Amino acid sequence: MSADRLSNMSKEVKPESVLLHPLGTAAAPEQELLCIFGTGDLGRSLGQRLLQSGYRVVYGSRRPHSCGPLPQGAQATSHEAAAQSAALVFICIHRENYDFLATLAPQLKGKVLVDVSNNLRKNLYPEANAEYLQRLIPGAHVVKAFNTLSAWSLQNGPSDANRQVYLCGNSAEGKLTVAEVATKLGFTALDKGSLSAARELEDFPLQLFPEWRLPLRVAFGLTALFFFYVLIRQVIYAYVVEGKDISFRIMVSLANKVFPIVSLIMLSLCYLPGVIAAFLQLYRGTKYRRFPDWLDRWMLCRKQLGLVALGFAFLHVLYTLVIPIRYYVRFRIADHTISQIRENKTSVFDTTTAWRSDSYYSMGILGFGLYLLLGITSLPSVSNALSWREFSFIQSKLGYLTVFFCTFHTYLYGWDRFLSPSSYKWYTPPAYMLCLVVPSLLIVLKLLLLLPCVDRSLIRIRQGWERNDPEDGSAKALLA
Amino acid sequence: MSADRLSNMSKEVKPESVLLHPLGTAAAPEQELLCIFGTGDLGRSLGQRLLQSGYRVVYGSRRPHSCGPLPQGAQATSHEAAAQSAALVFICIHRENYDFLATLAPQLKGKVLVDVSNNLRKNLYPEANAEYLQRLIPGAHVVKAFNTLSAWSLQNGPSDANRQVYLCGNSAEGKLTVAEVATKLGFTALDKGSLSAARELEDFPLQLFPEWRLPLRVAFGLTALFFFYVLIRQVIYAYVVEGKDISFRIMVSLANKVFPIVSLIMLSLCYLPGVIAAFLQLYRGTKYRRFPDWLDRWMLCRKQLGLVALGFAFLHVLYTLVIPIRYYVRFRIADHTISQIRENKTSVFDTTTAWRSDSYYSMGILGFGLYLLLGITSLPSVSNALSWREFSFIQSKLGYLTVFFCTFHTYLYGWDRFLSPSSYKWYTPPAYMLCLVVPSLLIVLKLLLLLPCVDRSLIRIRQGWERNDPEDGSAKALLA
Amino acid sequence: MSADRLSNMSKEVKPESVLLHPLGTAAAPEQELLCIFGTGDLGRSLGQRLLQSGYRVVYGSRRPHSCGPLPQGAQATSHEAAAQSAALVFICIHRENYDFLATLAPQLKGKVLVDVSNNLRKNLYPEANAEYLQRLIPGAHVVKAFNTLSAWSLQNGPSDANRQVYLCGNSAEGKLTVAEVATKLGFTALDKGSLSAARELEDFPLQLFPEWRLPLRVAFGLTALFFFYVLIRQVIYAYVVEGKDISFRIMVSLANKVFPIVSLIMLSLCYLPGVIAAFLQLYRGTKYRRFPDWLDRWMLCRKQLGLVALGFAFLHVLYTLVIPIRYYVRFRIADHTISQIRENKTSVFDTTTAWRSDSYYSMGILGFGLYLLLGITSLPSVSNALSWREFSFIQSKLGYLTVFFCTFHTYLYGWDRFLSPSSYKWYTPPAYMLCLVVPSLLIVLKLLLLLPCVDRSLIRIRQGWERNDPEDGSAKALLA
Repeated sequence: MSADRLSNMSKEVKPESVLLHPLGTAAAPEQELLCIFGTGDLGRSLGQRLLQSGYRVVYGSRRPHSCGPLPQGAQATSHEAAAQSAALVFICIHRENYDFLATLAPQLKGKVLVDVSNNLRKNLYPEANAEYLQRLIPGAHVVKAFNTLSAWSLQNGPSDANRQVYLCGNSAEGKLTVAEVATKLGFTALDKGSLSAARELEDFPLQLFPEWRLPLRVAFGLTALFFFYVLIRQVIYAYVVEGKDISFRIMVSLANKVFPIVSLIMLSLCYLPGVIAAFLQLYRGTKYRRFPDWLDRWMLCRKQLGLVALGFAFLHVLYTLVIPIRYYVRFRIADHTISQIRENKTSVFDTTTAWRSDSYYSMGILGFGLYLLLGITSLPSVSNALSWREFSFIQSKLGYLTVFFCTFHTYLYGWDRFLSPSSYKWYTPPAYMLCLVVPSLLIVLKLLLLLPCVDRSLIRIRQGWERNDPEDGSAKALLA
Repeated sequence: MSADRLSNMSKEVKPESVLLHPLGTAAAPEQELLCIFGTGDLGRSLGQRLLQSGYRVVYGSRRPHSCGPLPQGAQATSHEAAAQSAALVFICIHRENYDFLATLAPQLKGKVLVDVSNNLRKNLYPEANAEYLQRLIPGAHVVKAFNTLSAWSLQNGPSDANRQVYLCGNSAEGKLTVAEVATKLGFTALDKGSLSAARELEDFPLQLFPEWRLPLRVAFGLTALFFFYVLIRQVIYAYVVEGKDISFRIMVSLANKVFPIVSLIMLSLCYLPGVIAAFLQLYRGTKYRRFPDWLDRWMLCRKQLGLVALGFAFLHVLYTLVIPIRYYVRFRIADHTISQIRENKTSVFDTTTAWRSDSYYSMGILGFGLYLLLGITSLPSVSNALSWREFSFIQSKLGYLTVFFCTFHTYLYGWDRFLSPSSYKWYTPPAYMLCLVVPSLLIVLKLLLLLPCVDRSLIRIRQGWERNDPEDGSAKALLA
Repeated sequence: MSADRLSNMSKEVKPESVLLHPLGTAAAPEQELLCIFGTGDLGRSLGQRLLQSGYRVVYGSRRPHSCGPLPQGAQATSHEAAAQSAALVFICIHRENYDFLATLAPQLKGKVLVDVSNNLRKNLYPEANAEYLQRLIPGAHVVKAFNTLSAWSLQNGPSDANRQVYLCGNSAEGKLTVAEVATKLGFTALDKGSLSAARELEDFPLQLFPEWRLPLRVAFGLTALFFFYVLIRQVIYAYVVEGKDISFRIMVSLANKVFPIVSLIMLSLCYLPGVIAAFLQLYRGTKYRRFPDWLDRWMLCRKQLGLVALGFAFLHVLYTLVIPIRYYVRFRIADHTISQIRENKTSVFDTTTAWRSDSYYSMGILGFGLYLLLGITSLPSVSNALSWREFSFIQSKLGYLTVFFCTFHTYLYGWDRFLSPSSYKWYTPPAYMLCLVVPSLLIVLKLLLLLPCVDRSLIRIRQGWERNDPEDGSAKALLA
């Protein structure tokens, strides 16, 4: 390995090697040499990108002369020689083959080793790949990085959702060196702490909306449930009892019954756990005991519950606004006018109905406006710009206002129809009545919590006060 | 205090203590010991979280044996012993009790002190708590941090609007140490500079939309004003003069008159200060003199004015789109058709009205589309991705186009009704005419600024040129 | 130059000068002295801001006694004296005048030089201004910074799109020093790597949506094309053949034909290059060969194509929803009802038409909902929070679902009208049929790629497998 192959980067990592640098490299400091172990797809993609960004690249391979096509400009040599030539080594090898690296420990001592590996599924191994690598070669500075990028981005540079290189490691110098390479490749480096975060980074690319699963399942469950409920009460009832085929109503009318119902229930489910937690704290007289697991899990997906609810509310708005351009509606309105003429009837304008209809729409619009505001402040860049006092003002105060508007909107929709026996087809209540149960309960519970005496107790508990119940010592169980 | 209680972290802060470390800690580097002064709510919440994240925690207390329940696994000892055992001390004490810390100065020398305190209101003390702490213990590395998080997040980890730990301090090492702890607790650390930024960090949790207050007040004022104006001209006029009760129109019709009016006025108010500033610069012949305070304050809330205006425009759009499904509108249309039949009248299609009606809607839609575009580019993550040339292109060029579309939309709404005496009920002009004053003025002023000669002068002034007025030396007053 | 003029900052940069500091400065560490070369607009704006933020400022000037008005509190002296007094020098001089700085090399040795310059257009000089400066004064720590800010923000502090100071340089210390100044002025400093990134930073303020140009041109081209196509087929046809003036339909009806057409074509164009790339990889049998330039450029603007398409879809939605409140539509509906009465006709409700109409609206609404979801996940802060598996799930799987919904929506719009000769006015097909070509082709190609055998080959190729074609060695051309 000639002296000019020695990277400039090693100046920072190994100060004693400075004298080996030819003077010429100072004029062109970007021609650093990096080493890649492994000539598989990952190694080749990464190498191509490094070469395009102005680095020199040497591959370490078991068979340097027959390791297949390499990116133009790269060289291949034995693992030992490659490791010695560069201060930074990318480990593009599967974890199963890490063992042999232990034999290279002398050559890798003091080098920065970048672990870019991922696993096929979570919890495949007892420890993170990077931690295993550090254990194999204790003298190296292992840095976990680049594993959260897609192969496409590794080869072609940053693209959406692939702009940030998360890295972690126990060596601050090592992380700095890797961060510089990442910056040069066009990425933004984000330090995630010590090597104990490697497991988290290795799990990251495997995840597919973990915190969205429960809310989406709830949404699908509720949608299916209420869809069949209204299908039976409307379409099948009309077919069986009245002998009419109104199945065409599935596409818009039924959808527009199910979506607002699911939206309102999920919005309430988003605020219900907070109320339950408050009552639990009041009952226990302390805030230091952990909530039950189900409540914890519920509280953690409140944001997702709310956003899914907003999606359904959005569909409800669009389905409502297309009503007047539907063929069915136009036909029915024309039909109604024509029959009024032919039967020479006169309908009288009813101010109460006008009030009700307009209030109903007005509540719905204002509720949806607040709904959207909640959604916008959930955007990461917006919520990051808010202080938590501002965030909780919007998400809590305005959130309950949204629940109130939407519930009131639904009550206005029902109006006095709950008194009319014809609403109870086959002795079942209309779907909108069922959906009012959860939000009404939520509003009552919240009003209870706002009673001055209850509110005062809760504030004291949340400031750390504990009720010392002589019979019940469990309040301290978790703590002392 | 046994040697194994000494934190690994102190290796970085106090290099001379390395020899005291047992060899075993290298294998489990996460078991660092942190110290917390204060066993109140904050101290306990923070301690619980630190313990869950793999730290060991020792509390410093005046009465170590009777300080109440502590999180399981934590120990309590005297302040002196606790301070000596750890390299990093969280000060979870109220500022009023800081005095006694001065007596611990010898033990706290060279330690990193994390000030997490907040005040009940702004400007309670002449200097920031953290600066006061630094003055009490000059030998310590005081870092202000964690104070912007809610108690909930301190105990349970990051949540929305609580992901970022802002920190400041005069010691780079101290900040690095604290940033590492924050990262390990799951937060993102953001350096805000030297300790002189502590005041700003301590004020942050107290703020509740300070820059939104003026725009919201303007919005509420305008809404109330125009609501009563149209209430009197429509509902009360109809009741008094025609004896009809049309109060039901409040919910949708009146709202849909007030919202677009407020929206258009506020959109104009968002661009007016820029035009006023340009005329002021032209008049003064320099850009180096400060604007009057009222103009400065106005310019600083332009973004908020625009976003509130967008909210009102959004409500206007929804209120307009529900028109055809309102009971009142359906009744009136059917009534109109029926009366045409009965009276055997034939109405003729009027192409001019069709042109006007369609242009009116088209302008409104295009204006609203641009409006939304302005709103989207105001999102922090979007505006950060733009160069200022791009940002000012959208917010200025497209912004004025939006004003033009929306103003033209309103003129088309009015059409030739300003000529009809019946529009002037009780000798007052319709509300939409009043609201056209500000945008029309804005457009005229902007057109004046676009005149080549005026434009050229303005560009020269903004490039630093100054008109040297021999009689008026005030242009230089602020400078030399 | 007296000792008290020496900045505290130099403590970090030049440790040997510590003794020169008077003891008093420790108590007020913010009174650092910075130097500005150049008394033009930029220098004065920057100086004013530095003074407001608590720095002391000295200007270096050729004519220190007649350099015009300077911000109050600043002093002016010769370049040599100014350079020696401060550890950090802002170079607020045009690049053409950099030459004389070479004569100051001894005084500037070891200083941090901040290059804030910009050029009037791209590629004006062979190397970046900052690199040229570094070449002139090799002993200085040149840092490129602050050039991406507007003059307004340099004088008045951060505002939207002017919060981030990008910096680059070869000296880590130099960058830290500049980052600290930027933080103190209220900005967020972002390290973009070594000085070789200076060219990119100097080009940044000049750019005006470079990656949006192609998509916007495509959008304007398609809009103009289809506008004239429908104008001829509808308005001019009606005028020539039927002698009717329906020109008023331009504003809403025609717009609402053109916008959805452009939206659907552009959405397909957003997904087409991915499919073409897959077929190219299948044909070549390797993923390591570069795509043709036109395909590369096409792929790079997919996000912008999609967002422009979303904008057109949004306009289509609004134009559709205002249909029932248009004068023309209301007139026609009333007219239809009246003529039914007068001619005593009875129209029969057609369930098939109801199914078709409702399915058509339902598909459109669901398609638009997914469309919006794609748009929201394109926001930088949202896409940064996603893993690439999540991002590609949404943008690819849900994206194709969106294409399918919208294409199906258009087919339902056409229904059986393609069979009716009256649709082919002047022997041309209706516009919606033309617009179905691209999405239909896209869906067919995508379905081909989903065939198990094709899919398997593609996955193997994307995992790095290469088909070794004995006749065609070009697969390796780029690599070995």
